[in-house]
Amino acid sequence: MTELVLEATPGRTLVGRLAGGTDLVAGIERICAERDITAAWVGVIGAVSHAAYAYYHQTGHRYIELASDTHHEIVGFIGNVSLRDGRPFLHAHGTFADERGACVGGHLLRGITVFASEFTIRELTGVELIRTFDEETGLALW
Amino acid sequence: MTELVLEATPGRTLVGRLAGGTDLVAGIERICAERDITAAWVGVIGAVSHAAYAYYHQTGHRYIELASDTHHEIVGFIGNVSLRDGRPFLHAHGTFADERGACVGGHLLRGITVFASEFTIRELTGVELIRTFDEETGLALW
Amino acid sequence: MTELVLEATPGRTLVGRLAGGTDLVAGIERICAERDITAAWVGVIGAVSHAAYAYYHQTGHRYIELASDTHHEIVGFIGNVSLRDGRPFLHAHGTFADERGACVGGHLLRGITVFASEFTIRELTGVELIRTFDEETGLALW
Repeated sequence: MTELVLEATPGRTLVGRLAGGTDLVAGIERICAERDITAAWVGVIGAVSHAAYAYYHQTGHRYIELASDTHHEIVGFIGNVSLRDGRPFLHAHGTFADERGACVGGHLLRGITVFASEFTIRELTGVELIRTFDEETGLALW
Repeated sequence: MTELVLEATPGRTLVGRLAGGTDLVAGIERICAERDITAAWVGVIGAVSHAAYAYYHQTGHRYIELASDTHHEIVGFIGNVSLRDGRPFLHAHGTFADERGACVGGHLLRGITVFASEFTIRELTGVELIRTFDEETGLALW
Repeated sequence: MTELVLEATPGRTLVGRLAGGTDLVAGIERICAERDITAAWVGVIGAVSHAAYAYYHQTGHRYIELASDTHHEIVGFIGNVSLRDGRPFLHAHGTFADERGACVGGHLLRGITVFASEFTIRELTGVELIRTFDEETGLALW
């Protein structure tokens, strides 16, 4: 893919929490969908009772899925919202720490169960971030 | 706890550094208290000479405290400021890396000693984030 | 170093992606240089085919350089842009996860090869962040 640099205008700033038991990725996507947020930068702090994440095999062009029932703290998080198939899609990566502080991380999948979480969603307006299939990487990129 | 979504108005944007030897969590809280900042989203990059962090036992409803005198880089950070007991309270999670790059992380406690750090504090106005005890999780949530 | 707290004014909000094969740190710095961005807070999500990072030895005042040809996801990221030697300089720390989810992290060096990445650059205006040598830490601080 080629380089892309867009200038956005800050839109709404949401701050909130997900209910316990919520699917983290689906929950953020639903909150965006309900408010017609189609582009945003997202931060999440919290803990999960089930982690579902993935590693992208860069030459095999496939995700290797990982999961854990260990209760974890979210100790690193980066995410953004764009449109995929016409709906808000959260692309997020995160790091999880267990009771000894040991860390695992990856591309966050649907299926993560929130124990507690606080988020911020900073809407970006004036830009269209629409994911489409990229042959070179095998990823859905905007 | 139930879902909560608030729309905030961006307030002041602070950028700065803590002095060497400062307690990271207490330092950010003091900077906010001195400026009457009661809600914010916070980012910190830097290194610490002592790390103090915790894991929340989700069924036991207690924090398991961890600490390390290893000098670490801060390689992941998520945090926000709200009010707890009437004062600005920093809720932050972070990841620390040692000289081999190995990572540990958790809920950041008071007692972290800053070697060097740079921060941004993005104030959120128009919202009241006040922590109170939540029976379901055993945590102080807003 | 002493404490420093500045109030900035939000400037431009850029969102974009680096081309595959780009040097992550140099790429963000170039994008800033091309747009005269001299202070910013930066977020990056993505994956790399080569990682180059470092640990700062706090008493020896030297960086210990680490590198890996393992393909990694970026699962934690914190960064800011300031001026160093008259040019935009990205100070960033990050966490990388491999195919088992195992994490390493550190201070990001030039030489990281992007597989795919999405970034936001939030310009800070009204402040001058200029790095100069700090005797106490051995670091170039603003």
